[in-house]
Amino acid sequence: VFGDLGAFVDAAISAGAEIDALTDFVQVSKLDPDGRVAGHPRGDGAEAGAAALAYVDAAIDSVLAGECAGLCTAPLSKHRVALRHPGFQGHTEHLAARFHSEVAMMLAGPRLRVTLATNHLALRDVPLQLKPENLARVIRLTHRELSARFGVAKPRLAVCGLNPHASDGGIFGDEEARIVAPAIAIVRSEGVDATGPHPADGLFPRAVRGDFDAVIALFHDQGLIPAKLLDFRETVNVTLGLPHPRTSPDHGTADDIAGLGKADAEPMISALLLAAKLAVRQAS
Amino acid sequence: VFGDLGAFVDAAISAGAEIDALTDFVQVSKLDPDGRVAGHPRGDGAEAGAAALAYVDAAIDSVLAGECAGLCTAPLSKHRVALRHPGFQGHTEHLAARFHSEVAMMLAGPRLRVTLATNHLALRDVPLQLKPENLARVIRLTHRELSARFGVAKPRLAVCGLNPHASDGGIFGDEEARIVAPAIAIVRSEGVDATGPHPADGLFPRAVRGDFDAVIALFHDQGLIPAKLLDFRETVNVTLGLPHPRTSPDHGTADDIAGLGKADAEPMISALLLAAKLAVRQAS
Repeated sequence: VFGDLGAFVDAAISAGAEIDALTDFVQVSKLDPDGRVAGHPRGDGAEAGAAALAYVDAAIDSVLAGECAGLCTAPLSKHRVALRHPGFQGHTEHLAARFHSEVAMMLAGPRLRVTLATNHLALRDVPLQLKPENLARVIRLTHRELSARFGVAKPRLAVCGLNPHASDGGIFGDEEARIVAPAIAIVRSEGVDATGPHPADGLFPRAVRGDFDAVIALFHDQGLIPAKLLDFRETVNVTLGLPHPRTSPDHGTADDIAGLGKADAEPMISALLLAAKLAVRQAS
Repeated sequence: VFGDLGAFVDAAISAGAEIDALTDFVQVSKLDPDGRVAGHPRGDGAEAGAAALAYVDAAIDSVLAGECAGLCTAPLSKHRVALRHPGFQGHTEHLAARFHSEVAMMLAGPRLRVTLATNHLALRDVPLQLKPENLARVIRLTHRELSARFGVAKPRLAVCGLNPHASDGGIFGDEEARIVAPAIAIVRSEGVDATGPHPADGLFPRAVRGDFDAVIALFHDQGLIPAKLLDFRETVNVTLGLPHPRTSPDHGTADDIAGLGKADAEPMISALLLAAKLAVRQAS
């Protein structure tokens, strides 16, 4: 655990939890404990934001030094980090830069795994920015990590279409023919078992029934709508493309309920357990 | 029931079903029964297609004459109908033309109701064709029919955003501010309880928990992905905007399994029951 020991102990005491692993705690940055109120960082929050990024960086250093086998990150406030680190976009972009990796985001739940080919992008820009090479890279990454870290010997991947009914043979849009089919052809020529473009509305029920090991969604909501609808609490955000596993819960800091004992720990527990599982598989 | 009596009786016999309602059967078009094979209409299928449309038209005539209180349509082959009626797009468009109505499609399931603001449209055209007035019309229609036909006294409606996180305050796209928010303002000024734009991925779990009576999705897959994932067999396609209720199952003709006894009757049963319920509520 990388963080502020005082805040951690305060939280544990208020939750009535026993702390039996303080030897594994790395005290990165000591914030002034006087008058600490959960969810209300001092001043403009810049000090708290800088500390949050310092914890993440210390954890990355530890992974790079070979001391840790993977990362599970807790939510942080992008806004507060950006007060001292202008342009900070989030964990995933920061990790990609520090590990010099091209990454993709997967949502992994008990019944569905979905990788996103594009992420925080206006919907109107999705057809313009989606390219066969980028999409092929994301499919390839999904294939590689499912077999290397998730224990799926021969991953069966399904790629969504962009348009209704995957364009019904070109009646509504041509991105299936121009972008998606060529990307699938590229990865199939490399031996990856990827099919599609499938009409997205019919594909997710098939994936849940077990016809596929992962779905590649072409844009944010196409993947996140089914992932959050199915298993909100047990669906974990996994960053593909890093040299080591990295997971996180798919929720924010929830400042409005901080310290009230209302937060649901299940998403964080799921993220921790998956990070451990992926790291063990990678090591073995 | 409007259809071909010979084909109906053949199907009933092969399914081992008792037919006790032949007095309600309207024999519209008699197809040659010799050598009939389920799923393989004679020749190019033009005769079968024309017959299918004749059944639909006879049912519409009956509704217009006040003999029937609502319609439940079975799947038909758009392709085969179009062989004799070039330009035929489907039931919904045909009904809109014959009833001189502006319509919208709702998917109604036991846990979720979703209306589509746009339907069979390339994704790249959605941001261009979506207008505040059109969206307001669809929200208004959803409100009106939920209270008039579905027995929801004060419908609580939620409208999806178009972009990831509903654009996060304008960071990814501006359609929320330019189109969705103005549409919501229009209908709210008329007393409709509509909120949004909501980030779509977080909205559907809330709707399923009961926070809303219906969701308005901005494009086909945004609404159909959650609707089909939740309750595939019990989710019914409802046409809003017609003077009488009209439902249909949300699947095709499935020629590949015709006559094999494999088809699941549940979606058609759900559609029939909902048509009856809506017609009774409208009449009462």
